[in-house]
Amino acid sequence: MNFFEQLKFGPDGLIPAIIQEQKTGRVLMMAWMNRASLEKTIETGKTHFWSRSRKKFWMKGEQSGHTQAVRDIAFDCDGDTLLIQVEQKGAACHEGYQSCFFRSIENGGKSVKLTEPQLETPEQIYGQK
Amino acid sequence: MNFFEQLKFGPDGLIPAIIQEQKTGRVLMMAWMNRASLEKTIETGKTHFWSRSRKKFWMKGEQSGHTQAVRDIAFDCDGDTLLIQVEQKGAACHEGYQSCFFRSIENGGKSVKLTEPQLETPEQIYGQK
Repeated sequence: MNFFEQLKFGPDGLIPAIIQEQKTGRVLMMAWMNRASLEKTIETGKTHFWSRSRKKFWMKGEQSGHTQAVRDIAFDCDGDTLLIQVEQKGAACHEGYQSCFFRSIENGGKSVKLTEPQLETPEQIYGQK
Repeated sequence: MNFFEQLKFGPDGLIPAIIQEQKTGRVLMMAWMNRASLEKTIETGKTHFWSRSRKKFWMKGEQSGHTQAVRDIAFDCDGDTLLIQVEQKGAACHEGYQSCFFRSIENGGKSVKLTEPQLETPEQIYGQK
């Protein structure tokens, strides 16, 4: 059966995609894809998403150069989530961290801690605003 | 700042939680939490979710015994996704696979392949229906 027939896009036409660095197993980010961005991701081998806040089709790294080369695309039992293995160029997070998940909770959620170093500042990545 | 103040639950009151096996780095599943299930997860150290299809609060493993002991709770730059490290008891997927992401695409999405063995059948996990 064709892969797309096994997927369930949400009522908004989107499906969440978890992005994992294949080499390290680090989960880098989660973003949303519509069918067009998933097709483009498969076709080009670079991740493409749909931004819900900007209502815009985008390629990861189009501004920062921090692109993601796709190594594997998996989907879950319910067909409503994607897990994509990538080779990440530079920091995945727009705040300059390797992963967007750079903070964890402490003390039962009363405080948070940084769990990885900031590799670059947003200004270094995107230039002065 | 309190952790909860940094989170953005969606208009439906839910936030997606990616569940990763800490020991292996394997992404096991993605499920949804409301504030109550996240608080219960922190309080008990076992993952709790909100089922969108069943409209029901549930603890992972309540039927199967395949519970998840929480080792770390991280959140992303936008505060709209959680990444939870766990120690998984048994198969995470209700279909009997270690991970819900047991299928990957082949041939540009024209076909799919199994990427891990089925450890148990659903009948073995949940009993005959």
